[in-house]
Amino acid sequence: MNLRKDVHGGNVYRARDEYGISIGEILDYSANINPLGVPESLQKAIMNNMNLLTRYPDPDYTGAKRSLAEFNHVNESNVIMGNGATEIIFLIMEVLKPKKVLIPCPSFSEYEQAALFADCEVEHYRIKEEEDYILDSRDLMESLTEDIEMLVLCNPNNPTSQIIERKPMKDILDFCREKGITVVIDEAFIDFVDEEFNISMVDELSVYPNLFIIKALTKIFAIPGLRLGYGIGSERLIKRLELKKQPWTLNNMASLAAEILPKDRKYIEETKKWIKAERLRFFSKLSSINGIKVYEPFCNFILIKLLDDRLTSYNLCEKMAQKGILVRNAANFIFLDEKYIRIAIKDQRSNDIFLEKFVKTLEEVKVTDGIYT
Amino acid sequence: MNLRKDVHGGNVYRARDEYGISIGEILDYSANINPLGVPESLQKAIMNNMNLLTRYPDPDYTGAKRSLAEFNHVNESNVIMGNGATEIIFLIMEVLKPKKVLIPCPSFSEYEQAALFADCEVEHYRIKEEEDYILDSRDLMESLTEDIEMLVLCNPNNPTSQIIERKPMKDILDFCREKGITVVIDEAFIDFVDEEFNISMVDELSVYPNLFIIKALTKIFAIPGLRLGYGIGSERLIKRLELKKQPWTLNNMASLAAEILPKDRKYIEETKKWIKAERLRFFSKLSSINGIKVYEPFCNFILIKLLDDRLTSYNLCEKMAQKGILVRNAANFIFLDEKYIRIAIKDQRSNDIFLEKFVKTLEEVKVTDGIYT
Repeated sequence: MNLRKDVHGGNVYRARDEYGISIGEILDYSANINPLGVPESLQKAIMNNMNLLTRYPDPDYTGAKRSLAEFNHVNESNVIMGNGATEIIFLIMEVLKPKKVLIPCPSFSEYEQAALFADCEVEHYRIKEEEDYILDSRDLMESLTEDIEMLVLCNPNNPTSQIIERKPMKDILDFCREKGITVVIDEAFIDFVDEEFNISMVDELSVYPNLFIIKALTKIFAIPGLRLGYGIGSERLIKRLELKKQPWTLNNMASLAAEILPKDRKYIEETKKWIKAERLRFFSKLSSINGIKVYEPFCNFILIKLLDDRLTSYNLCEKMAQKGILVRNAANFIFLDEKYIRIAIKDQRSNDIFLEKFVKTLEEVKVTDGIYT
Repeated sequence: MNLRKDVHGGNVYRARDEYGISIGEILDYSANINPLGVPESLQKAIMNNMNLLTRYPDPDYTGAKRSLAEFNHVNESNVIMGNGATEIIFLIMEVLKPKKVLIPCPSFSEYEQAALFADCEVEHYRIKEEEDYILDSRDLMESLTEDIEMLVLCNPNNPTSQIIERKPMKDILDFCREKGITVVIDEAFIDFVDEEFNISMVDELSVYPNLFIIKALTKIFAIPGLRLGYGIGSERLIKRLELKKQPWTLNNMASLAAEILPKDRKYIEETKKWIKAERLRFFSKLSSINGIKVYEPFCNFILIKLLDDRLTSYNLCEKMAQKGILVRNAANFIFLDEKYIRIAIKDQRSNDIFLEKFVKTLEEVKVTDGIYT
């Protein structure tokens, strides 16, 4: 048994076993995946290239790196491939072994896991509820004490869906460059952010030798099952990482996906159209519901606080699961508690089903006065 | 660039770049993969389950473990899944961190890599050329000094294709159990060994708490591109390994393969038929060639020593590659040198093409008197 199995969202398998619902019938709002599904271009490529499976992966992943370098306007020597972003997160900690890592929280828990596995000390910086979980860059910089060697920022941040804008991010990077602090930015969800915000730091790579960026194709192209992440950094750092990397961690279908998907402009356009239409519509519908606080999302998921005393994230998630909808219980994020949940933004039809069942669940609480059996 | 890229066979990408041959035209004798190709059952399953890619893998890999447990007649709690056998090799070193590891060599180089990554000391035991690379278990046991905490055995052994038979293997296991030495046996190629030898130690798991076995579906089912390995050990050890494992390392297509392939009896039967027919036929044809020594193979690859002074593994591999055939230069295996190559056993038609071009290459050497340009 994987002892960290309930740490993340997206565990439809447990839901199937516990509630007896077939996986196909589950509406999974606990994982933040593009509702457009696996791109047709990839499905076709996989069917036409089954023979790829008979070969070991290219240890250099030349084709995949070339395509991603082009997509990000960097050189191939700035790219390292990973078996999901997870491998990259663990690798950067393992190689740099910073004495102390500062992680603004609530945030994705694997940064801390990876740091602890590499025997690094971890300090949490509290992103403040009273500021609606928008990071205060000035205050953060004041917390960067002498002993901190690495800062990990998730942008947009999971689970808050908040962003660090370009100006404050550059202030942080300037400050850290001067202090010799490595800044790791996880941009796994950046493709869902409106382009007007222009928050990706990939184009600042040459300016900041202390910058390392983690990216994934998993969320935007709806392929978390394929395991496909990558890192972008200075040539010098990438070389150090490659030396410590296990061979062949990326499977050939993932490497094929990395080659072709960045070129699937049609899918990317459709995604932009969907998120543009649905992000604010779904947010506004949710905001009109009584008894909850909804934080304005900047990507494809939404943090919600339950204000009703009779409700906890545990019983809400339970009741929603009984209705076939998985919700991410956000209670185990550092600095959050059992009043928080996180939900994905999906297509309009699914979101409307979600809204109906969510409202119904909240009303049931009022009727039963919070007694759950 | 992956700095360990030339360490292993199977790098058709480099051959393509260096010799300008399209990958489809290369006859790859440097990787030991079942020539029957990707099982149809798996191809169909992948096509019918593209939707699996939209979901995160099951963190427990329940279906995959159940199927492999059944296949190996062990419990699910004795099985851990890996992104290729490589992940399992690195994980066992990382978790047990033995002070000193003894590795009989020549053997697969990743054991040593993994041990060194985990800061373990490595000692090599020399498997003797004068004994045709057949391991002498008595002599090995005498080399197991007090400070050795782990012994790694590859059975059948890569690159020698020799086996440790049941009786000497049990002697080693008895000895090591008494001394508190963990024995890791890599059985990656065991499915190609004639059943009469009955050398797998999986059925001895309950007898030896100090035993850990590494297996792979990659070779027998011709899917190295999918990354699919696993480990079998005591429930207690598996639990320790799971705690240190990164989440979701196995992609969903690999996990699907683990579920269905052990049930593909037809493919397994055809494989047994092919290897039974081809192993000794190919060996006997090779043995009749002058100027080389061919070690009798016990699985699907063959170690060859070049006796002709004018020939090295480097120029032979080069000349064969120019003819479109990749051969594994075995010079970088510990205790081997530039007189050794390793070749796969493929289907009769391919093997006959190999024989023709191999003989031709050896004759060219005689004519040119070893001058290569």
